Amino acid sequence: MSDFAGKDQNFVFRQLLDYKSFTYSYILGDPVTKEAIIIDPVIEMVERDARIIKDLGLELKYAVNTHVHADHVTGSGELKKKLPKCESMISNVSNAKADVKLSDGDKIDFGSFNLEVRSTPGHTNGCLTFVWHDKGMDFTGDAILVRGCGRTDFQEGNSETLYESVHKKIFSLPSNFRLFPAHDYTGQTVTTVAEEKTLNPRLTKSKTEFKNIMENLNLPYPKQIDKALPANMVCGLQDLQS
Amino acid sequence: MSDFAGKDQNFVFRQLLDYKSFTYSYILGDPVTKEAIIIDPVIEMVERDARIIKDLGLELKYAVNTHVHADHVTGSGELKKKLPKCESMISNVSNAKADVKLSDGDKIDFGSFNLEVRSTPGHTNGCLTFVWHDKGMDFTGDAILVRGCGRTDFQEGNSETLYESVHKKIFSLPSNFRLFPAHDYTGQTVTTVAEEKTLNPRLTKSKTEFKNIMENLNLPYPKQIDKALPANMVCGLQDLQS
Repeated sequence: MSDFAGKDQNFVFRQLLDYKSFTYSYILGDPVTKEAIIIDPVIEMVERDARIIKDLGLELKYAVNTHVHADHVTGSGELKKKLPKCESMISNVSNAKADVKLSDGDKIDFGSFNLEVRSTPGHTNGCLTFVWHDKGMDFTGDAILVRGCGRTDFQEGNSETLYESVHKKIFSLPSNFRLFPAHDYTGQTVTTVAEEKTLNPRLTKSKTEFKNIMENLNLPYPKQIDKALPANMVCGLQDLQS
Repeated sequence: MSDFAGKDQNFVFRQLLDYKSFTYSYILGDPVTKEAIIIDPVIEMVERDARIIKDLGLELKYAVNTHVHADHVTGSGELKKKLPKCESMISNVSNAKADVKLSDGDKIDFGSFNLEVRSTPGHTNGCLTFVWHDKGMDFTGDAILVRGCGRTDFQEGNSETLYESVHKKIFSLPSNFRLFPAHDYTGQTVTTVAEEKTLNPRLTKSKTEFKNIMENLNLPYPKQIDKALPANMVCGLQDLQS
């Protein structure tokens, strides 16, 4: 099993991409106990993700969502059907349905590892970032993207709140921590705290300048929002209601 | 600078994707000496790649090509224009133009690191794989993809040769070595020798079965081949001829 983790690695880490919504999902696992979690699964990619989890000999404990996405439907519900030991997780502030509701300061345990849950509102009220202190990794959702950040112009978006979240809860991490976002549209896969603190074109500005930038992005209405939001409020299982 | 490499990492590693041709490019760097190389750059992504190299404080020594790609134009030539210290590299067997011609057993030095060059013909005659022994990584080009392999039905493709190459030059690596391909069409970013030796649906078969599979794929003619091949034979600088 450790052969699947990679040389000198005592943990499994897989970054997976959905080309349609440009969403990254992450499988994190303990190769000894076999317990694994997936962060931000996408409904169309559930077959792929379940197969990889099985191929790697892992058992999925949690399907964790950084927030209620507006641009794709979560795969949490479908994964629970395929892998019945799996429980879904999302922020209690999100008001979405899930087996486990997360709050700032909680720990997500899998095998011998755990992630610290940090509340990072601004893109939505319920946005979370998950810090893997042991490995120097942080899964940021839409709070911070590579040289960018999530939108603040719909759902419960608030640019000043996002600015505070990033500076207090992400930029306060050690500068050599790697940041893994929920989305990327430029073909980049990772960044670091040091990079975003010095090179992010928005978040290196003052809070006032950041607010002005975010108010003048003139972005289009998200294509999937009318379908994605109600589905994601119930873990992607919208069909259960019919 | 080490803050950009990540926690506990003494090397820079970036995996980058071109969504159009589904090509992965890789930046590998030494954060102390600043020397870096890029593997399989794509011409449309040169601006992004040059910016990342500059942002990370690196100096590009080589633009290395695993082979003469048929599905996109290499960025080697454009990178050389933007970063004049950079030299292009490709297999001597490819008959393509480049500053440095590589042969089986050569070493590619950058900073305190080096990659071993292994000849892995089958997709094309000049296909190379680059082994980073120290880090347990191998950059396989189109010789092996995640749960797949490169086509053998055009250019100098030969399925039996590819089978031999993969088994002798890649599957002979330690089983916990991570494999990074030149392309992926399913949103996966990495695999290991152990996985492909046990789970690859083609290459776990006998050579005869593999040959039959490869002869019956019925794949379409590559869209960009008529433009890409002549350009890649001259490092992507087809405009220099006019």
